[in-house]
Amino acid sequence: MAEWQVIQGGVTAPKGFKAAGITAGLKPSGAPDLALILSEVEAIAAGVFTTSQVRAACVDYCRQRLEAKPSAQAILCNAGQANAATGAQGWTDAVESAQLLAQALNIAPELVLVASTGVIGQRIKMDQLRQGIAPLVAAASPDGSDAAAKAIITTDLVTKSIALETTIDGRPVRIGGICKGSGMIHPNMATMLAFVTCDAAVSPPLWQQMVSRAADRSFNQITVDGDTSTNDSLIALANGQSRTPAITEAGPEATKLEAMLTEACIALAKAIARDGEGATCLIEVQVTGAPNDADARKVARTIAGSALLKSAIFGRDPNWGRIAAAAGRAGVIFDQGKLQVRLGEFLLMDHGQPLPFDRAAANAYLKAAAAGEYLKSDTVLIAVDLGNGSGRGTAWGCDLSYDYVKINAEYTT
Amino acid sequence: MAEWQVIQGGVTAPKGFKAAGITAGLKPSGAPDLALILSEVEAIAAGVFTTSQVRAACVDYCRQRLEAKPSAQAILCNAGQANAATGAQGWTDAVESAQLLAQALNIAPELVLVASTGVIGQRIKMDQLRQGIAPLVAAASPDGSDAAAKAIITTDLVTKSIALETTIDGRPVRIGGICKGSGMIHPNMATMLAFVTCDAAVSPPLWQQMVSRAADRSFNQITVDGDTSTNDSLIALANGQSRTPAITEAGPEATKLEAMLTEACIALAKAIARDGEGATCLIEVQVTGAPNDADARKVARTIAGSALLKSAIFGRDPNWGRIAAAAGRAGVIFDQGKLQVRLGEFLLMDHGQPLPFDRAAANAYLKAAAAGEYLKSDTVLIAVDLGNGSGRGTAWGCDLSYDYVKINAEYTT
Repeated sequence: MAEWQVIQGGVTAPKGFKAAGITAGLKPSGAPDLALILSEVEAIAAGVFTTSQVRAACVDYCRQRLEAKPSAQAILCNAGQANAATGAQGWTDAVESAQLLAQALNIAPELVLVASTGVIGQRIKMDQLRQGIAPLVAAASPDGSDAAAKAIITTDLVTKSIALETTIDGRPVRIGGICKGSGMIHPNMATMLAFVTCDAAVSPPLWQQMVSRAADRSFNQITVDGDTSTNDSLIALANGQSRTPAITEAGPEATKLEAMLTEACIALAKAIARDGEGATCLIEVQVTGAPNDADARKVARTIAGSALLKSAIFGRDPNWGRIAAAAGRAGVIFDQGKLQVRLGEFLLMDHGQPLPFDRAAANAYLKAAAAGEYLKSDTVLIAVDLGNGSGRGTAWGCDLSYDYVKINAEYTT
Repeated sequence: MAEWQVIQGGVTAPKGFKAAGITAGLKPSGAPDLALILSEVEAIAAGVFTTSQVRAACVDYCRQRLEAKPSAQAILCNAGQANAATGAQGWTDAVESAQLLAQALNIAPELVLVASTGVIGQRIKMDQLRQGIAPLVAAASPDGSDAAAKAIITTDLVTKSIALETTIDGRPVRIGGICKGSGMIHPNMATMLAFVTCDAAVSPPLWQQMVSRAADRSFNQITVDGDTSTNDSLIALANGQSRTPAITEAGPEATKLEAMLTEACIALAKAIARDGEGATCLIEVQVTGAPNDADARKVARTIAGSALLKSAIFGRDPNWGRIAAAAGRAGVIFDQGKLQVRLGEFLLMDHGQPLPFDRAAANAYLKAAAAGEYLKSDTVLIAVDLGNGSGRGTAWGCDLSYDYVKINAEYTT
């Protein structure tokens, strides 16, 4: 039973946060392309970044900053140029961007984090960015979350936002988030970025642990095409403005906050998978019976990422063989004689052997689920039990359609 | 410089081997579906099998057999039913298949290895197989390789065969091979099977080492869709009928034989990637400058398997960003400031930064290479240098087309 409720407001739902999004002229399209998330006070900051060896300057910059001191007051995000594969000049541009915003806000440059998304190999259009800083700061508002959400997207079809509220020590505590992404990567015009705000008071190491674990259960469990971006970043700020007692160690309060943080990240992550390039439906894969949770998540990810299964779901084909085969190659040991596979309410395989099932009904379920006509959700549910422990995990993906190939074949660098 | 020549004859090119392929009635289509590879004498046998936890009975059977004694005289392969996810009855069927062939050949059952490909979850049609054994043995001939190659395919568009010859100690030594596969897996009607024959005399442990290393450089370096089958098998027999001195340890002769074995496996593996479902061209990715060869192979595999890059090649788009991004996420450490990327003769990226290049000419190269009009090859060549060592490795894949989605979406279990 959820101990929180969904509220409005995105990243500005938590107390003491403002946001803004403006058109600075970075995107050739003229769409909004510069975003700001600002806390009234210095906030605890945590981050999770791409593990790729080919990284944008902003990723290295944020990593260094957070290692030096895990706090920040503002996040500056530009869309249009990824500032990846831009060498020493890219680094200089990232540093200058942070300095310009710090000057305009009259805060220390160390309190500004930066993120970029857009075309790899292109530097940020610094003239436009320089001119955009003043109007961006002027636009910062407690209602600015949607504007910021619009200014960080690239190939996304929709903006993605969430806010949740619970109580800690009898007082309201809120978490908000916005994100962008529509493939795990679309290297010349995309990436996955997520920004989360929170008004609870948390100790820096505990906040980083919570954010890392939440990322492992959400953003690291979605797959559109198996590719990872040069710029992928999750940055989370906790500013303590809820005036609730500081959470400094494990306990019921920490558990409650982390559960809500994880839920917010899962909602954002699912929104990315649902917006996957060419996708017609969301696929949720629930794995149980694994040796541990990490193994369960691995199997779930492998199934959700199988090109063969994704093609089958696009064809609305209840293909248990592809689910079992993907589970088998995930690198997790189990006894195939105990494998169980369900699609929606249909038990397709038990004790490692296929069962007779109503193929027409299963096909109808797939059609209805994909059309959003089953339990009012556009989610195709796959459940796999490995019969080898109590570990459980979930992953999300989307189907593989002609349009995925079309979008990625016809896109020209 | 190659120290061998291509010859005719497939698996029957080496001395002392016969083969056959007949229609036993296992495939609904009426196409050939039962194959035999037979050595005049007991041969040294080595194998490499799927690492999936969901395995066909034939895989477990061959593994157990080869662990008990690394020798065999005959390989029986059926197409039509994979005999995977068939439980205890599937195991009994595999054992009976081997026994039936052994009786017909009047050899010990332990000398027969078995392989299956076809629909997962279906047992071998044993009545048809029983009736097919006698005509199969009767058809065994020194010219039977092509018939066997035809009888092992499923969704393949073409049969795949190779034979090479060199000299050891002044006498001819030959290696032959046939294989099947057109996706790494197409779980309800496909898998990758390869059978290699050799007339050299080699010690069992050395032969297994050679075969494992050759598989790592060939079959394990191809990717069509990243999926792994329940039935994947490579079985290699060396019968010593060339009457050359036995190779029992590392040295020039062993090196020569292993190089030819690797070349034969690469030729077969490339034929599978070229026949990938919906593929319009073969992609070869050469990686240099890695910390070691295994790391280089890993990076090459990751690039060749990137859905984004495969889509770009289908669109004939010289997209260096997708190549660099895939290299970056391969899990191998390198300095992005040293990364170099080439497409055919075009240097697209150097020192981690994009270079200006003639985009129209690069696009023309892709079109010509894919059409088989460039150096008489249908191969798109991608070369990546990581600048971090002397390790090198190559991988092969194919582009991702509308037809891949179509084949896999419209296939119904």
